Amino acid sequence: MNGAHAVLRTLVANGVDTCFTNPGTSEMHFVAALDDVPEMRPVLALFEGVATGAADGYGRMAGKPAATLLHLGPGLGNGLANLHNARRARTPIVNIVGDHATYHQALDAPLASDIVGVANNVSRWVRESKGADTVGADTAEAIMEARRGGVATLILPADASWSEGAEPGPHDFLLHETTADTGDAIERAVVALRSGEPTAFLLGGRALTEECLVAASAIAAATGAKLLCETFPARLVRGAGLPAVERLGYLAEFAIAQLQGIAHLVLVDAKKPVSFFAYPNLPSELTPAGCEVHEVVPAGVPTADVVLELLARSVDASLEDAVRVPASRPDRPSGPLNPETIANAIGALLPEGAIVSDEANTGGLFVSGATAGAPRHDWLTLTGGAIGQGMPVATGAAVACPNRKVLNLQADGSAMYTLQSLWTQAREHLDVTTIIFDNRSYAILNLELARVGARTDGNAADQFDLSRPPLDFVALANGLGVDGTRAETADDLVQALERALREPGPHLIDAIMPARL
Amino acid sequence: MNGAHAVLRTLVANGVDTCFTNPGTSEMHFVAALDDVPEMRPVLALFEGVATGAADGYGRMAGKPAATLLHLGPGLGNGLANLHNARRARTPIVNIVGDHATYHQALDAPLASDIVGVANNVSRWVRESKGADTVGADTAEAIMEARRGGVATLILPADASWSEGAEPGPHDFLLHETTADTGDAIERAVVALRSGEPTAFLLGGRALTEECLVAASAIAAATGAKLLCETFPARLVRGAGLPAVERLGYLAEFAIAQLQGIAHLVLVDAKKPVSFFAYPNLPSELTPAGCEVHEVVPAGVPTADVVLELLARSVDASLEDAVRVPASRPDRPSGPLNPETIANAIGALLPEGAIVSDEANTGGLFVSGATAGAPRHDWLTLTGGAIGQGMPVATGAAVACPNRKVLNLQADGSAMYTLQSLWTQAREHLDVTTIIFDNRSYAILNLELARVGARTDGNAADQFDLSRPPLDFVALANGLGVDGTRAETADDLVQALERALREPGPHLIDAIMPARL
Repeated sequence: MNGAHAVLRTLVANGVDTCFTNPGTSEMHFVAALDDVPEMRPVLALFEGVATGAADGYGRMAGKPAATLLHLGPGLGNGLANLHNARRARTPIVNIVGDHATYHQALDAPLASDIVGVANNVSRWVRESKGADTVGADTAEAIMEARRGGVATLILPADASWSEGAEPGPHDFLLHETTADTGDAIERAVVALRSGEPTAFLLGGRALTEECLVAASAIAAATGAKLLCETFPARLVRGAGLPAVERLGYLAEFAIAQLQGIAHLVLVDAKKPVSFFAYPNLPSELTPAGCEVHEVVPAGVPTADVVLELLARSVDASLEDAVRVPASRPDRPSGPLNPETIANAIGALLPEGAIVSDEANTGGLFVSGATAGAPRHDWLTLTGGAIGQGMPVATGAAVACPNRKVLNLQADGSAMYTLQSLWTQAREHLDVTTIIFDNRSYAILNLELARVGARTDGNAADQFDLSRPPLDFVALANGLGVDGTRAETADDLVQALERALREPGPHLIDAIMPARL
Repeated sequence: MNGAHAVLRTLVANGVDTCFTNPGTSEMHFVAALDDVPEMRPVLALFEGVATGAADGYGRMAGKPAATLLHLGPGLGNGLANLHNARRARTPIVNIVGDHATYHQALDAPLASDIVGVANNVSRWVRESKGADTVGADTAEAIMEARRGGVATLILPADASWSEGAEPGPHDFLLHETTADTGDAIERAVVALRSGEPTAFLLGGRALTEECLVAASAIAAATGAKLLCETFPARLVRGAGLPAVERLGYLAEFAIAQLQGIAHLVLVDAKKPVSFFAYPNLPSELTPAGCEVHEVVPAGVPTADVVLELLARSVDASLEDAVRVPASRPDRPSGPLNPETIANAIGALLPEGAIVSDEANTGGLFVSGATAGAPRHDWLTLTGGAIGQGMPVATGAAVACPNRKVLNLQADGSAMYTLQSLWTQAREHLDVTTIIFDNRSYAILNLELARVGARTDGNAADQFDLSRPPLDFVALANGLGVDGTRAETADDLVQALERALREPGPHLIDAIMPARL
């Protein structure tokens, strides 16, 4: 058995049966081995950022890693931004990067570069396999590390793939769960919750499942604590019948207002909140002065369910007292298209069990409110701030969950980083509907530019203007093999969205908004 | 003066007056400062790989650096593949990467990452500016390092941009030219050239100007030496009236055949040749056993003109004996479209002074021959093997040379990495004509797959099939604001190319070839 076969056999034996690929010559033996390991589903992308972002979306929804297959340092570079987002989401990914044969590397051939240095930027674990004799075991270790929550990068030299004498790695290993010493944080949190002092929860990571939200909501009902979650959760279950949780604001001013007066902040699989960017004359740390922080579950530690249940018992909260959101939907909107009517169209039509990949940015301001009482759904967000994540994540989520509808809420500027996702959606007949929030600008950056006091008509403002020429997303979708519709009114959007959700396969709706909103 | 103004003032005072941008919030003060420094031309790209590749094309043609403006680690990641190509081309680029404010970095906000580690992959020089007081001098040093031939990365924390008290760096500094001790290589080369033993030149980098080619050709005429150049030159001047130089083959088998029997290899601004990839049972080093290598100008050292002139004098070669290619063009082709007829259409119509950005890969096999006697032109190639370079390089070359026609020969698969280039071409009204060599496959990888003996109908072969769904490049061009034409016959192509070259502004021609050629 050659190394490539051992890698693939180890992956599928451990349940890693999907690989998002954009391979080249150094991965050729891996590709050839796909013919002999039909349990592995390869999903081709036209660009590596699609492959890595799809692996992120897959991992968030499947709860297990997909593999990637990238081509040396430049392929890893192209995939880096969405691996960055995956790192922040703590999504399990087995990130496989082909490299030159070991003996070829010292020759500094044109494609040679320092892959390890780049991989370290996004990976919790990096290993360059030394040869066919270790590659099976290396793959098993990569899977184990990925399952701990993050990107495990396995660098696969071409001769480690093509050499014979390899064996698959183990597939019955036990995952040693990550635990952490949180000192007396839980006791302090209980005291705080019982004290009546203003207390808030900041929930993140695996604390955003139904089980955890119910426990947290019950605690809130019993104690008056406020429920907040990370600004950009990897996966948040929400909708009718589920407890609601308010997301911490993106702009520092909003987050500071949400946390004002809080005396105790209880962190559950979340980090101490900091502002997304620094601004002159605004604090970077968002916790109010004097507020005590109780880190009952450090970020990345998978004990949120146990700890929240313990806290609930400790404050005599009954899970039946969790406050569940009643079913409610906005009416189907009519008239002009704007952020509110787009939001209402989505709220009116969001199907049961939908997966929402949300990279609508400023244009999506009202969507969260309009869908709060819609049927139960999952919400996936831009965890690491590297735009160009929404379309690939939608793609991967649809591969992971073939029986659910995926709705991708997508800002126009951000769409242009990984638009190639649409082609993979067409190739794989994925049930993804993309709504482009088309305001012909980097609207969020216009807002930031206004904050620094720049003119609105100079070279500076021109850097955020996408109207010259306008992007025609219907043409772009068609060019990539996806059905596209232009919506200029709310009625258009309702009609197009109803059709898209009814018909299988990918669709794109270009929702034309007032400029710069 | 704040730091951002000092950076911009230092750039423009040193002749760096073009900046390829894709900024975000951490670069906002830099963007705002553009309004006050109108000498700087910002050129917006929808994706960082377009910005970095355009800076590469600009630098190759302008002979001086452009700047980039990228958004933290993920922006650098998106730009990394084309910075890798620029590194291999030794193109001068001042690569500016915004970062969080210095005091914000320790907080590990969502967009934080190890920028230095990633930048080291592609940069000859990396510095994180510590504050407004040093940022002007840091910028000057970055320019100096870029001019030495390569990517100089300046990491610009937001507070270094927004803080007051900055001053521009120097603009009258002298560039200490890189030199190298080549021992007695020149003397040995002279002895070899006079010996009558089979001798070949391998020319690269700055040895591919007219002046150098004439000297090398004169030496070849006087001594019988063979002239070869790097497989992927950064910029090769060629056409009628210029000496011809044979490019070293991409596949190891071809390169080995070209070098067979050579007893002396004279390297002029080129490295000892190695195969692009390693293959089982083929050597990685291409120099024949027993061949002596004379490195008269190490790669990256700018003395090719002086050394070639010295060699010419030493072997009594007269520059007038240089063999110049006579003018000749193929007839305009007719009939079916295939790699030969596409090549002939280009050869028949290539305008005087054209700049050719060549990423046609397998489909472009015959173009070099068909254009050998066309009017004088420059040929820019994929220097680092990171596909997705042809369209951005064409874009940047057109910015650098507004009075020349740019022809981008572009493989379909490779086009899909940085297709967003077309939008920048439309926005800036650039005279770029793109010909898509549309074979609906990663044809070069099919070839490699056949070499490892895989089936042509399985999952493996499916990884290189771009026909499902087919990409509609006319729709894609239109979606990005560029005129697009589909050519199904050679007559179509001739007509479309004539029109595109006649009309100002960007054009795309989708040349439909037989599948997988």
